[in-house]
Amino acid sequence: MSYPEKVYLNGKIVNAQEATISVFDRGFIFGDGIYEVMVQINGSFFYGQKHLDRLQEGLDKININFDVGSLTTEIPKLLKATSLTDKDCLLYMQITRGVAPRQHSYPADIHPTVMMYALPKILPNINQANTKVITREDFRWSRCDIKMTSLLGNVMLNEEAMQHGSFETLLYRNGLFTEASHCNVFFVRDQVVYTHPANEYILNGITGAIVKDLCTSLGIALKEIPYPSKELALLDEAFLTGTSTQIAAISQIDNHCLYMGNEKGPITKKLQEAFFNLK
Amino acid sequence: MSYPEKVYLNGKIVNAQEATISVFDRGFIFGDGIYEVMVQINGSFFYGQKHLDRLQEGLDKININFDVGSLTTEIPKLLKATSLTDKDCLLYMQITRGVAPRQHSYPADIHPTVMMYALPKILPNINQANTKVITREDFRWSRCDIKMTSLLGNVMLNEEAMQHGSFETLLYRNGLFTEASHCNVFFVRDQVVYTHPANEYILNGITGAIVKDLCTSLGIALKEIPYPSKELALLDEAFLTGTSTQIAAISQIDNHCLYMGNEKGPITKKLQEAFFNLK
Repeated sequence: MSYPEKVYLNGKIVNAQEATISVFDRGFIFGDGIYEVMVQINGSFFYGQKHLDRLQEGLDKININFDVGSLTTEIPKLLKATSLTDKDCLLYMQITRGVAPRQHSYPADIHPTVMMYALPKILPNINQANTKVITREDFRWSRCDIKMTSLLGNVMLNEEAMQHGSFETLLYRNGLFTEASHCNVFFVRDQVVYTHPANEYILNGITGAIVKDLCTSLGIALKEIPYPSKELALLDEAFLTGTSTQIAAISQIDNHCLYMGNEKGPITKKLQEAFFNLK
Repeated sequence: MSYPEKVYLNGKIVNAQEATISVFDRGFIFGDGIYEVMVQINGSFFYGQKHLDRLQEGLDKININFDVGSLTTEIPKLLKATSLTDKDCLLYMQITRGVAPRQHSYPADIHPTVMMYALPKILPNINQANTKVITREDFRWSRCDIKMTSLLGNVMLNEEAMQHGSFETLLYRNGLFTEASHCNVFFVRDQVVYTHPANEYILNGITGAIVKDLCTSLGIALKEIPYPSKELALLDEAFLTGTSTQIAAISQIDNHCLYMGNEKGPITKKLQEAFFNLK
């Protein structure tokens, strides 16, 4: 990973090393902010409006008073300054509640901090990675529908995957898989695709929603029912979804092997190809 | 609330308005940090070593490589620069994992960010406030033993108390009270004091631990059993504990009144007086 060249910060575009905020920013003191990531492919943001809508919903849920619509004129300025206009890239956006003396409750008249940056990023047409994952108890809060920057739980869970030479950590709550540390997860068994319903235990992923639509249009049976963590042996396929992960086949879950080498399951493959055709 | 004059930041003492960090600090991006608050009373930090030990434990739990012992020479410099040497004050300390390009897992060679500030704070000898509180489902994560800066859940829950003209929000998980948004909580029924055991559902409060010791030394029956949220009507007394809250009597929980005006229960009073004698 590397730093971007430029950072958009509260209306200004500055060199990344000069992009600083007050230590009293509630984003630093309390993780009191919402973020979003989207990718530009072939000159436009892939499902960009869905990402902006989700950002607005997150801000509304935690009562940060900011109109995401105002970013539509700011994003092109940032891309231009970073020489990424129309180029394939990743855009990170973070809006925190703003700067105030530390106390948990917040003042009414606070001004949000807006930070964005773009990085060159060329996603593969189809994600060819066959990823290994581990499984862990989901100890995060019960409002995972909010894409917040209070991410220590996700950090700890993702770091465990890295320590085990894996890409992700699949999380289970009360014996049922919810999602992964920064991806959604889908399971295939007996020609049926299973995924957790989009409630407060998971982030309602945009790529995940596309995959659900693709299942419908391709005539693949889909059940929005959480898959039991004890039934790994009965699985035929599993895959991760996410904005930059796209659709990634899972080859191994803990010690349970699903596929060897570059092999992947037929339903995963079918969905990957259909997803590619959307771009 | 107000800003401090000076801030200690990575070995330097700067004016508060000049205390800035990179937007790539993982404290800002991920809430990836640990904090601690302690108070100086009559020239020394009240149970200061316990606070420093807890800070070290928190850092160790999330694998931030920092020796809290190094702060013992830095804190006096900050107090001196703030003209608070030997004065009653509150010290806030926050240590984040440091600055790195954004990805959930973290590099091995990262340098922690160390931020501290002190504010004049004269605590009352005995907290005379009779506080009103509301109750809410505890939707936070299941590692509340870690005093982290990923605090959005606590912020949301505390803000709800403020919106209801209350001081705190008592939290219940599966029908059992855990703690409050930034305090521990104790209940009294039939001469027995109840509080949640210090496991992963609560922060192991230092004032709370002192209160438990005082119960033992005063011959007050104590059960470390969580109190059921449905049994408010059977309560005789309840109180909050915390570093700056000390011991605060609760006069009202939701619509359930415990005490009127400045009245408070005999066990709360006895513990408050014994706590005062420790200072």
